[in-house]
Amino acid sequence: VAALLECVPNFSEGRNPATVEALLDSIRAAGACVLDHSLDPDHHRSVITFAGSPDAILEAAVAAAGKAADLIDLRRHKGVHPRIGALDVLPFVPIRGISLTECAGLAVRAAERIWDLHRVPAFLYEAAARLPERTNLAAIRRHPPGKPDIGDALHPTAGAVAIGARNFLIAYNVNLTGGSLAAARRIAARVRESSGGLPCVKALGLPLASRGLLQVSMNLTNFEVTPMHAAFHAVNSAAEKEGMQIVESELIGLIPRRAWEFSAAYELKLSRTDPDAIILENRIAALK
Amino acid sequence: VAALLECVPNFSEGRNPATVEALLDSIRAAGACVLDHSLDPDHHRSVITFAGSPDAILEAAVAAAGKAADLIDLRRHKGVHPRIGALDVLPFVPIRGISLTECAGLAVRAAERIWDLHRVPAFLYEAAARLPERTNLAAIRRHPPGKPDIGDALHPTAGAVAIGARNFLIAYNVNLTGGSLAAARRIAARVRESSGGLPCVKALGLPLASRGLLQVSMNLTNFEVTPMHAAFHAVNSAAEKEGMQIVESELIGLIPRRAWEFSAAYELKLSRTDPDAIILENRIAALK
Repeated sequence: VAALLECVPNFSEGRNPATVEALLDSIRAAGACVLDHSLDPDHHRSVITFAGSPDAILEAAVAAAGKAADLIDLRRHKGVHPRIGALDVLPFVPIRGISLTECAGLAVRAAERIWDLHRVPAFLYEAAARLPERTNLAAIRRHPPGKPDIGDALHPTAGAVAIGARNFLIAYNVNLTGGSLAAARRIAARVRESSGGLPCVKALGLPLASRGLLQVSMNLTNFEVTPMHAAFHAVNSAAEKEGMQIVESELIGLIPRRAWEFSAAYELKLSRTDPDAIILENRIAALK
Repeated sequence: VAALLECVPNFSEGRNPATVEALLDSIRAAGACVLDHSLDPDHHRSVITFAGSPDAILEAAVAAAGKAADLIDLRRHKGVHPRIGALDVLPFVPIRGISLTECAGLAVRAAERIWDLHRVPAFLYEAAARLPERTNLAAIRRHPPGKPDIGDALHPTAGAVAIGARNFLIAYNVNLTGGSLAAARRIAARVRESSGGLPCVKALGLPLASRGLLQVSMNLTNFEVTPMHAAFHAVNSAAEKEGMQIVESELIGLIPRRAWEFSAAYELKLSRTDPDAIILENRIAALK
């Protein structure tokens, strides 16, 4: 099996489509395949998902980091999502034929080349972390992070970048109406693992000024432990206590088929829910 | 692509596992692959799903029909599900590399061989129907069906069999508590297409004596028109009006991945629900 991985960079630009198009072009020109992208004006953030071989991914990640440093000036940036750089986060995610450790090696090589070529330093996180306190991305954002792991001074306009290797996660947001930002933050606190909520869930409460809504923005880091539906219902219960209503939910980036299959059964009180047992194509694939 | 189809025979035996094991053995011995099977004591019915090449499917269907005629005596049969034979229904369903018309041809060949070998006559239905009034399986069950399309007198103990070709359907039951059989029948009537309910839904209200429950037993014949979730919620709304509660739902046989993907988004008010756009594996498959 040829190694295939994905990279899901988050850029601090969610309003100017021309900038995001330039980022997409830089990724495609380096030989990677863009699978998905989205912009959010309130987060002032765009998320691109691209896939390819390790070589193509490395080239594309370094090129996109350079393009972001050229086009995005963090000094003039205001958005509701916490951030440290123009290219803010650069995770390498194994899909098949490559291990998480190999992805971590690729993350370090990307960080070195981004520093050498573009003078943007990197904090290494999750499977690529060198310092235990930097394993958690949220901790890098929350505290003054000290000296970067790769490189030196912050880039004057592009800041720094958090580069890591991790397994697939689901970026899942639930948008609410009928309450305050403080209430959205209380809901996020009730839902997230770090304050006693659902396991494998990270959550922030954010305002979506352009849509007149509030958001519980989540990362689901293990959909077998907490699937999308469970997160949705936890937010819904907490929202009801605050007198708030869910308007919609949104996936940022892609979701593995298996996660989707996990969530389908949730509502229906199905007596059998194992996707391997009940989905025709899975049964046929198992015959071979 | 090698032709692959499935066959989903329904047998009038849902209580004696040894009989169902013998049916499974006859199918496997003929060279088809069993994908799923289930027994229901109240329906007094078992449903087997098997797949294979046209030749293997034909052999297995004829063998299973013979085994059913040997082992199941319809004269002593009592079950809540309507039935006409020991092997009651024998649908041929295209999966890939074979058309519905070719499956109908196979259904006729199976009917001829089952009559020649086992003296069980057949009514041909859906895509295999010769008489327009036999297109609908429910009509064959409801009215005295007259002379069979293939063969002659009913088999003394095995009755007749409805043999047809059709596209995939989802056999989906919702089990209820807190009301009467009459109420379950009213719910079924409210839900099914033929009395003004959801399109592409057939439904019966049945008692599940062994479990002390009532059931709305459905066929969803086009999950893109009415997905599982829609049927579940229609039953739930109608049940609430009757003061009844859903205990669980059950899939009989298998469900296509696409149907599963369709249902996953239903509850979550997702802003993007196209499985081709949001599922990683579908995006990667589309790259090639």
